[in-house]
Amino acid sequence: MWKPDRSAQTPLYQQIVDHIEHAITYAELPPGSLLPSERKLADQLGVNRSTVIQAYDELRASGLVESVIGSGTRISLTKWGISPSNTPNWRQYTEGGTFLPNHRLTRRIREATQNDPSIINMASGELSSDLFPNEMVSSILREQPFHEHLGYDDPQGYHPLRESLVDVLQKYNSINTTKSSMLITSGSQQSLYLITQCLLSPGDAVAIEDPSYSYSLPMFQSAGLRIYRLPVHEDGIEPDDIMNLYRKHRIRMVFLNPNYQNPTGTSLSEAKRIKLLRIAADLRIPIVEDDPFSLTTFDGNVPPPLKSMDTDGTVLYIGSLSKVAASGLRIGWMVAPQTVIERLTDARQQMDFGLSILSQWAAQRLLASEHFDQHITSLRQALFQKQQMMVQTLQEVLEDKVSFVPPLGGLNLWCKINQTIDDGKLLEEAIKRGVVFVPGSVYGSEPGYIRFSYAKPKLEDIRRGILAFSDALKQF
Amino acid sequence: MWKPDRSAQTPLYQQIVDHIEHAITYAELPPGSLLPSERKLADQLGVNRSTVIQAYDELRASGLVESVIGSGTRISLTKWGISPSNTPNWRQYTEGGTFLPNHRLTRRIREATQNDPSIINMASGELSSDLFPNEMVSSILREQPFHEHLGYDDPQGYHPLRESLVDVLQKYNSINTTKSSMLITSGSQQSLYLITQCLLSPGDAVAIEDPSYSYSLPMFQSAGLRIYRLPVHEDGIEPDDIMNLYRKHRIRMVFLNPNYQNPTGTSLSEAKRIKLLRIAADLRIPIVEDDPFSLTTFDGNVPPPLKSMDTDGTVLYIGSLSKVAASGLRIGWMVAPQTVIERLTDARQQMDFGLSILSQWAAQRLLASEHFDQHITSLRQALFQKQQMMVQTLQEVLEDKVSFVPPLGGLNLWCKINQTIDDGKLLEEAIKRGVVFVPGSVYGSEPGYIRFSYAKPKLEDIRRGILAFSDALKQF
Repeated sequence: MWKPDRSAQTPLYQQIVDHIEHAITYAELPPGSLLPSERKLADQLGVNRSTVIQAYDELRASGLVESVIGSGTRISLTKWGISPSNTPNWRQYTEGGTFLPNHRLTRRIREATQNDPSIINMASGELSSDLFPNEMVSSILREQPFHEHLGYDDPQGYHPLRESLVDVLQKYNSINTTKSSMLITSGSQQSLYLITQCLLSPGDAVAIEDPSYSYSLPMFQSAGLRIYRLPVHEDGIEPDDIMNLYRKHRIRMVFLNPNYQNPTGTSLSEAKRIKLLRIAADLRIPIVEDDPFSLTTFDGNVPPPLKSMDTDGTVLYIGSLSKVAASGLRIGWMVAPQTVIERLTDARQQMDFGLSILSQWAAQRLLASEHFDQHITSLRQALFQKQQMMVQTLQEVLEDKVSFVPPLGGLNLWCKINQTIDDGKLLEEAIKRGVVFVPGSVYGSEPGYIRFSYAKPKLEDIRRGILAFSDALKQF
Repeated sequence: MWKPDRSAQTPLYQQIVDHIEHAITYAELPPGSLLPSERKLADQLGVNRSTVIQAYDELRASGLVESVIGSGTRISLTKWGISPSNTPNWRQYTEGGTFLPNHRLTRRIREATQNDPSIINMASGELSSDLFPNEMVSSILREQPFHEHLGYDDPQGYHPLRESLVDVLQKYNSINTTKSSMLITSGSQQSLYLITQCLLSPGDAVAIEDPSYSYSLPMFQSAGLRIYRLPVHEDGIEPDDIMNLYRKHRIRMVFLNPNYQNPTGTSLSEAKRIKLLRIAADLRIPIVEDDPFSLTTFDGNVPPPLKSMDTDGTVLYIGSLSKVAASGLRIGWMVAPQTVIERLTDARQQMDFGLSILSQWAAQRLLASEHFDQHITSLRQALFQKQQMMVQTLQEVLEDKVSFVPPLGGLNLWCKINQTIDDGKLLEEAIKRGVVFVPGSVYGSEPGYIRFSYAKPKLEDIRRGILAFSDALKQF
């Protein structure tokens, strides 16, 4: 990365001005591009913030950039003078495309955490770094010789990884499957994406939970699907609602997260699971079962997934290592009838030519390790401790201002704020105080809900985070 | 994977019948599913082929499976008797979806290579395993401690990898860029996919080379693009053709592979490069420059990419490690204006949440290694040798039956067959003789062309492969 030259005659601020002017001239920063915040750029370049402020002032004075309070400094849209008029209108291109941008508040959270790495992050669904099996991964790399073929792998996924997963799914989730019924994907996310692209067509009606992680994904809208909602109760959705949606809208698929649902933390009761499978079979509607959290169960009893009871080939089961080992390995899987697996494999091949063999190899070694079980046990304990800390602090400082039911697993606490509130504004107040969470509206919930994740902040930061949130809430 | 139990009383063939019946009953193999060939299943289960033949006969007799000569054995579509009628109609689902299946002949080649691993593969654009930097990768894993964060990485890509790529692009390709203008993707393939999904809308007109690798990709059709062709001459496309297509069809983007073009092996002349950039700038049309092969240049002089001459921010540059180091690491990159990079990063985040940190870390170590340059030099020599072997054999055995111009780099030899021929039928004859290639029609070429890749077969197999091909050609 470019850095100003401290030994040069030109003042630092002027070097920054020249550098940005150059980027504008060569259309690397086309009109409308957002510049980093003054603080962030100062950090990146290793200069004082005042130097960056001076540089931005200079650029503003020449009309090359514009600042709008609250939305940062951008390359000027009106001044095309210095920018070559032959540059494609990139702004117009980037505003087009089938694929929709992320939810506004999701992007706001990402921006806030990038601008201030010290922020307490109760928004991310990622484990804190001490919960990853770091030493296991390092020792696998160090001690186990890697001799796999470095070419394109089997597009369905590395065979030994699929074999190990067959064992893991049998052992922990009571799912009987074979490696030919399994596709390895880049986390759960890619499984969901492939389903929306390959098994559904624009205009198709689907049912998702309300609230739901899926609602936060523009991928459903990008695929042109009509989305209908299944309200989530304390024991999960009501299976009869599927019947009603089918009668009214001919829904073609149901997306569910039955264990420690994201964001509510609820689990579908066993009676409802049985009923649900019967209804889906009667209507011949596939169920997509997203199951990222079941292994985190605090009491050690993993709730049996729908897939383990599925005798009709109705369920497409999705799992991943992201929430129980390492999200950075990007390893997920889908278990489904072979016809489905073949279709999705073919499409994935065209999108990205499959996954890294190195990552699949490491994941396989991790799953097959004699220490994997111990890792899962420690993870459960650590998550339970973190949840307890969050619950206790909330009860202490916001006793009658919020309500929640602590789930028995997973990474999230779903909180109702006992007053009318604009959750976007509450997020802004929280960001000012150094903490982020996900506003419920991102999940399509009714107003006044938020999702706190206890996965990412360190145990000792959870209390500070809740106190900062409490302070933000007091502004309303 | 399931294997028959040799110590059981039940005969092996009957165990296979029972196993397949069970899979049908539990809808793991829905109606219409293709069973493995008899030879393949025998290999998988470690039984004689005659045992599998007996099992399939039994299943056919009961009406559970059907065989059609030339298209294998499938689960019967008509006999729903044993299969639960409550299974979703998976066949209907998999035939829907926005994303189109791969080209028929592409799937045929894949099937042939999977069924017979000993086939001589002149279809794959993958390097043979001895050309990968196997020892470099093993020693990186063994000797360099891995201490990276195992969580989600920066969605734009691992910072040190982007930094190393800035240096590599400067050194080999004369491209000046910064890490903020770069996105790390899963090979070139994902860059292309993101462009079609995020910068273009259904109905948009684009221009691609004729013939072209892009033509083989249903991703262009899946995105609903209108495709217009730029004929490829010995010195590449004619820039004026872009002007004409723009006037007639308002094309919005041009996809090119200027160095050792896939499949023709041609390179765009320097005069044409300059003219092309001027026309694109005048019309303000972006050029997507796919550049997977430039480092393979046999004489060591890497042709400067369009991006290195691009002062207007017109070019989206795509590169990858797949053709010059290891396709299995799945590392590609795009260099583009920051507005574009931000939009694509956001979308990629939603599709798969980014790439494996492990794979990015290993790629960075590889690129930064003092041995990387030596690897590239050896690779060039080996590819040149393989090309020579192919050229000599073709000249020897098919002198006046084929014509071609050996390219100065890349992995492919584009051959014209000097007679009228159905290239699909020629492929079938070749498969029978143990060799595959890609028929030109996959790339949208006029009849009578084929693409031979010399990357994957071992040097000593190239001669055998061409002899087998010659034999196949004699059938016409």
